[in-house]
Amino acid sequence: MGDGNDGFGLEHLPYGVFTPNAGGEPRVGVRLEDDVVDVGALLDDEAFRRPSLNAFLAQGPDRWAQVRGRLQAALGNDGVGAAPHRHPLSDVTLHLPIEIGDYVDFYSSIEHATNLGRIMRPDAEPLLPNWRHLPVGYHGRSGTVVVSGTPITRPSGQTRVGDAAAPSFGPTRLLDIELEVGFVTGGPGNALGDAIPVEKALDHIFGVTLVNDWSARDIQGWEYQPLGPFLGKSFATSISPWITPLEALRPYFVTGPVQEPPVLRYLQAPEPRNVDLHLTVDLTPAGKTDTFTISRTGFGDLYWSMAQQLAHATVNGATIRPGDLFASGTVSGTEPGTMGSLIELTWRGARPLDLAGGITRAFLEDGDTVTLTGSTPDHLVTLGEVTGTIVPARG
Amino acid sequence: MGDGNDGFGLEHLPYGVFTPNAGGEPRVGVRLEDDVVDVGALLDDEAFRRPSLNAFLAQGPDRWAQVRGRLQAALGNDGVGAAPHRHPLSDVTLHLPIEIGDYVDFYSSIEHATNLGRIMRPDAEPLLPNWRHLPVGYHGRSGTVVVSGTPITRPSGQTRVGDAAAPSFGPTRLLDIELEVGFVTGGPGNALGDAIPVEKALDHIFGVTLVNDWSARDIQGWEYQPLGPFLGKSFATSISPWITPLEALRPYFVTGPVQEPPVLRYLQAPEPRNVDLHLTVDLTPAGKTDTFTISRTGFGDLYWSMAQQLAHATVNGATIRPGDLFASGTVSGTEPGTMGSLIELTWRGARPLDLAGGITRAFLEDGDTVTLTGSTPDHLVTLGEVTGTIVPARG
Repeated sequence: MGDGNDGFGLEHLPYGVFTPNAGGEPRVGVRLEDDVVDVGALLDDEAFRRPSLNAFLAQGPDRWAQVRGRLQAALGNDGVGAAPHRHPLSDVTLHLPIEIGDYVDFYSSIEHATNLGRIMRPDAEPLLPNWRHLPVGYHGRSGTVVVSGTPITRPSGQTRVGDAAAPSFGPTRLLDIELEVGFVTGGPGNALGDAIPVEKALDHIFGVTLVNDWSARDIQGWEYQPLGPFLGKSFATSISPWITPLEALRPYFVTGPVQEPPVLRYLQAPEPRNVDLHLTVDLTPAGKTDTFTISRTGFGDLYWSMAQQLAHATVNGATIRPGDLFASGTVSGTEPGTMGSLIELTWRGARPLDLAGGITRAFLEDGDTVTLTGSTPDHLVTLGEVTGTIVPARG
Repeated sequence: MGDGNDGFGLEHLPYGVFTPNAGGEPRVGVRLEDDVVDVGALLDDEAFRRPSLNAFLAQGPDRWAQVRGRLQAALGNDGVGAAPHRHPLSDVTLHLPIEIGDYVDFYSSIEHATNLGRIMRPDAEPLLPNWRHLPVGYHGRSGTVVVSGTPITRPSGQTRVGDAAAPSFGPTRLLDIELEVGFVTGGPGNALGDAIPVEKALDHIFGVTLVNDWSARDIQGWEYQPLGPFLGKSFATSISPWITPLEALRPYFVTGPVQEPPVLRYLQAPEPRNVDLHLTVDLTPAGKTDTFTISRTGFGDLYWSMAQQLAHATVNGATIRPGDLFASGTVSGTEPGTMGSLIELTWRGARPLDLAGGITRAFLEDGDTVTLTGSTPDHLVTLGEVTGTIVPARG
């Protein structure tokens, strides 16, 4: 623990896309410690001499396992032969690793859905009647999924302030984050009209990434009836440059929470169905160098698992493609300081966070940097971090 | 009028992607009368020797105008030199013409939104408070946009029947259509964080297509709170194989309806902002050869225009890509028989359509075929039709 290589050993080997700063084309790499290994060069394989993981994603789980085995063999022990193909992270530029087909965002944390219900509809039952029966979700904008490090421009849009008779236009006042874990699909997929059974769902999942689903709560609050979130979310969603193979997380599967009432047959996932990950949200306030951890939470208790999400999303016969992204929705716990969004952590701004030295935050200010991190409890697998800094609204 | 060539003359020249049945690779074509012209062969241009229009879409409006001019010149008069590059429609297979990036569906018809409000919330004001202030919209699933002619498998999913305590699983009982007009974007697009001004929006629009946004009303009704439609829509959306260039529709722009209250500055579109198209929905009941026109409506009165839709969708800085699809939402009028969905035409099944000879329909039955058509009032430009036949739910 504590040195920069933790969680990026041979057990992990997450995939990304990089360009050496010395020149050349974007290509697929795996991260090993503080280096990036050029996979196409090491394995002499054209599938990795591409600007995205999609060709490899399309090849399916047998091929993913084979390549992982070859990489572990080639890089294991001293891995001397691999040396010419290793680039220090400081000598490369990392890119968005996937051409994302469709992006679906779920609402899978019962704690988050309950908190939001209490904040948005204080006089009603916090969970809507469908929530325990299906993983509620919707489609987001795949074209504005960006790689970690991309600056996030404060979005403008329509909001209605208080009881104003008419909406007004301007930069969002309630800019928020959502701490999520997403998965990326691959393999041959399904034919239009066929569902993916919950028992087979994990065979269609290549790996996972942290996701920050940036949210403008005032824009969202005014626009979302009756068709759901649109511009309050579509300005940007950040993912990690590193996709952690599901294979690296196999030792960390844990039993998920009991679902009551029992779910319909097509959602009955084999146990253990969840992945045990510890997640954190760090905030570096504008103009400061100090970073404050504002949330620590766990992914192992998520109500709706990845397999359930994918089985649900395809039960109507909708197809998936290699490179589709499915995100969990905000991951929150029940205790103070375990919630994955500012709207929950500050109860819609009513209880601003007191960081230190008079610095408080209800929502994000220009210049703030938010960084999501995650790892297995033993720190052997560290998810690639997702960071972004807020820049002022334009024009 | 009346022969098969109407609306596919030199004034139109819609673009598609085809493969000659005699063999070869998919390539770009334009339709002229009952032929498809191989554009890459005729113009000796690599941009058209592709399996989608996307490369051409990316080139932008100056290039689109230039190519259209060259095609009209080459195909005009006798166009003798073009003859070797013309294939009868009966000798080709048509494909989905675009690799669709993101698919956004709006809710732009005030008549449709009012009807749905009355049906869904009979005791409340039919239009929600935001409706007249912004074009309400949401993201659909781009990966299940299919080309006209693709069979539509009846989707299964969760529904709650009446006041049942729990949902049940099975094929939808309320399978519906939505008659829509969509537009396809192209050109250099915008940078992340920059809006597309409403005055410039049409420069980013390559062309239009009819859209059938198939809908399972019972699945949608149970799932859609609070994040909007998901599986009730994502099983399939059909578009035409032919994209009509916006340029071909320039003579048919008309003034849109007055918007009251006035809209915010960023939505104030130059007039004429709407396109005058006549639209119809035809139904061929299962096992019959007779076709019944169940709806005739107009696109010229749409409350929110294409330019307003695109300005709104990007006002938060969200980018567009060549090949994004934005659909109008169901186009409905105020009179009986002018509504673009069965839920409206039959008032959620309460008043089934009486077709003829004892054939009635509340919602779609297996074997039914629905065909959408559209044209300019003078019939000089006929939109490519969109048809689909319902096949039974799977296993």
